Amino acid sequence: MRRLQQEAEAFIHQMYREKGKPEAAGGRIREIAKEIQATGTYTHTYEELSYGAKLAWRNSNKCIGRLFWENLHVIDARHIHSAEKAAEAAREHLRFAAGDGKIRPTVTVFPQRNLDGEDPLFFHNHQLIRYAGYETGRGDPHSLETTHLAESLGWKGRGGDFDLLPLLIQEGEDIHMFPLDQKQDVQEIDIVHPEEEKFKELGLKWYTVPAISDMEMNIGGITYGAAPFNGWYMGTEIAARNFADSFRYDRLKETAEILDMNTSKISTLWKDRALVELNRAVLYSFQEAGAGIVDHHTASEQFRLFCGKENQLGRKVTGDWTWLIPPVSPASVHIFHEAYDNTVNTPNFFYRNNTSE
Amino acid sequence: MRRLQQEAEAFIHQMYREKGKPEAAGGRIREIAKEIQATGTYTHTYEELSYGAKLAWRNSNKCIGRLFWENLHVIDARHIHSAEKAAEAAREHLRFAAGDGKIRPTVTVFPQRNLDGEDPLFFHNHQLIRYAGYETGRGDPHSLETTHLAESLGWKGRGGDFDLLPLLIQEGEDIHMFPLDQKQDVQEIDIVHPEEEKFKELGLKWYTVPAISDMEMNIGGITYGAAPFNGWYMGTEIAARNFADSFRYDRLKETAEILDMNTSKISTLWKDRALVELNRAVLYSFQEAGAGIVDHHTASEQFRLFCGKENQLGRKVTGDWTWLIPPVSPASVHIFHEAYDNTVNTPNFFYRNNTSE
Ligand code: HEM
Ligand code: HEM
Repeated sequence: MRRLQQEAEAFIHQMYREKGKPEAAGGRIREIAKEIQATGTYTHTYEELSYGAKLAWRNSNKCIGRLFWENLHVIDARHIHSAEKAAEAAREHLRFAAGDGKIRPTVTVFPQRNLDGEDPLFFHNHQLIRYAGYETGRGDPHSLETTHLAESLGWKGRGGDFDLLPLLIQEGEDIHMFPLDQKQDVQEIDIVHPEEEKFKELGLKWYTVPAISDMEMNIGGITYGAAPFNGWYMGTEIAARNFADSFRYDRLKETAEILDMNTSKISTLWKDRALVELNRAVLYSFQEAGAGIVDHHTASEQFRLFCGKENQLGRKVTGDWTWLIPPVSPASVHIFHEAYDNTVNTPNFFYRNNTSE
Repeated sequence: MRRLQQEAEAFIHQMYREKGKPEAAGGRIREIAKEIQATGTYTHTYEELSYGAKLAWRNSNKCIGRLFWENLHVIDARHIHSAEKAAEAAREHLRFAAGDGKIRPTVTVFPQRNLDGEDPLFFHNHQLIRYAGYETGRGDPHSLETTHLAESLGWKGRGGDFDLLPLLIQEGEDIHMFPLDQKQDVQEIDIVHPEEEKFKELGLKWYTVPAISDMEMNIGGITYGAAPFNGWYMGTEIAARNFADSFRYDRLKETAEILDMNTSKISTLWKDRALVELNRAVLYSFQEAGAGIVDHHTASEQFRLFCGKENQLGRKVTGDWTWLIPPVSPASVHIFHEAYDNTVNTPNFFYRNNTSE
């Protein structure tokens, strides 16, 4: 309780200081102290929740997209206590975030962790939208466990490469399952290449809204175990990791072959060439479809602006170099040549310890 | 002196243990103790120097090439005390290391640092072979300072992109300058592309033997301030850094243009495409010329073997992830997906604190 009070105070002070009204902190801190004394915990005002979530993003050391931290849409879903309503809110989140292509960075915040350390609700999904993975090798191997869980609850996938997993929401002792509506909740982009017609035979597609749902958000000592958040994609996440990693869709070889590259020996750099073409195709396909996406060069420049702005305000940017560098041509962006302090400040997002994946 | 004795003991124990004759360590340690007592320092036997240098390589956390640590050629140049002889030895090192294309990993060890903390001899060159850099923008910007130093000693470069710097060797108070013989001491490879004839108009070339000469080698408490060492190149070092970095030769734009890429916007990934083509060209040109070079995929596999071998021998590999990942398609090699312990063990190589660059 002493700890909670301290963390609350630090957050409230920071918020009012940054909002230019430091004198207002005292009153609110006393209010929180009373509430903690009476109930063992406290409740954020919407203003606190909203600003806290933005700070949690701003403090996300691994995130290259933080220039836009002030534009986060914070949806308050703390009144929701059933898995069914949570599924509705999650689907609304997806539709709102998708905009009409102009993706909106959004977080939906469900009830806070209770005094027993339990989350009234939480998601077993890694992301709200994710493709199933099967023992056959089809689909996304990263989803194997979640797919098993869904199957154990009666879900039947079509055994394909891009089967949408249902939402898997824990409410108390039970896990509830809700399908996404592929038309209404999910926008998917067929991946084609700007020049190579044959590329489309790879049959690749991906969804537009990456909404991480298995992290918890910590604000002023309060933990939100269900707070799915999304930005828009950086192209490399799809093309250089999801499609390329040998333990994911593993499509470098096929890509090289369909593009007639010489794969007879590795030193022809067919892997590197295929990787770049995959990345070009993803960026091109999203852009043609009017779906929000950013390339890693532009994202790096935006991150440079973010650092500049923060420094100008006298704030030190923290960062995790190993995640901030893009997995394609990392030395071509300035981040590679900088050093970052990886101190983890709160508010922030953390991995949930009891997630299914 | 206590510290020196301890470091000597640790090294001697390790060496004899690894060589399978731990019982021999005791005698040698007593000998060293006497020598330190009498003179304040001690002298390595050739066996110690040789094994110590190999360990220094094996412990180089940033080096992906360590599979071959046992094959290091260790040239004892501790008897050399004049800059002139040192220049001769350095040039011999280059010729020996170049082999006939089959590059030999080699270190030449000059006299150890004395009791006053001074190196009898040391190199002001970053590498034994390096191109000058000029205020005009021509040449290698990384060499600006060394070029200035050479010029202050009367050297006149031709103002080109690939002018070989002279050796700059400190002997006592003086810096002595010795030209390399471009024909005899240096092998250079013109960079051409496996398919694109026009590529050669970029006019790029590079040397085959990277011999770092501004690090010191520490073995059992003894420091060798001049111990230039070389391996063969990994292609990315030349193509993705020397040619591509904006603060080096900065040739991505020209490469993209000569290959008719669409450079109208960054999201066409022309930088990434140009980078890969530069890398292909470097690997291809070296291979065609029969000059030793390794691509980053093969080097990563060799590093995997190294780690496997070390683990099998019960030794923990230390490594610096941020340097081990290649600057091209890093996520396509296993290193990216591993974690490494960056503890710095000795023997090892360290940056000299009083280097000119
Ligand atoms: C607006 C566009 C955004 C872009 C382009 C972006 C980009 C990225 C990228 C490329 C990564 C690394 C992902 C990986 O390598 O797996 C990342 C990580 C992360 N981002 Fe962002 N991001 C955006 C929005 C957001 C938002 C809205 C939040 C939270 C409110 C956020 C929080 C995070 C966190 C917590 C991580 C680390 C995830 C983990 O540890 O797995 N980002 N971001
Ligand atoms: C045999 C072939 C070799 C290959 C392919 C190789 C590869 C590499 C690469 C790619 C780097 C990173 C360079 C950079 O990013 O600037 C590196 C660093 C390093 N290597 Fe190796 N290496 C080889 C041989 C050697 C040898 C013979 C030694 C010493 C005896 C050595 C010691 C080091 C050290 C000390 C570094 C770090 C240099 C620094 O901090 O600037 N390597 N190596």
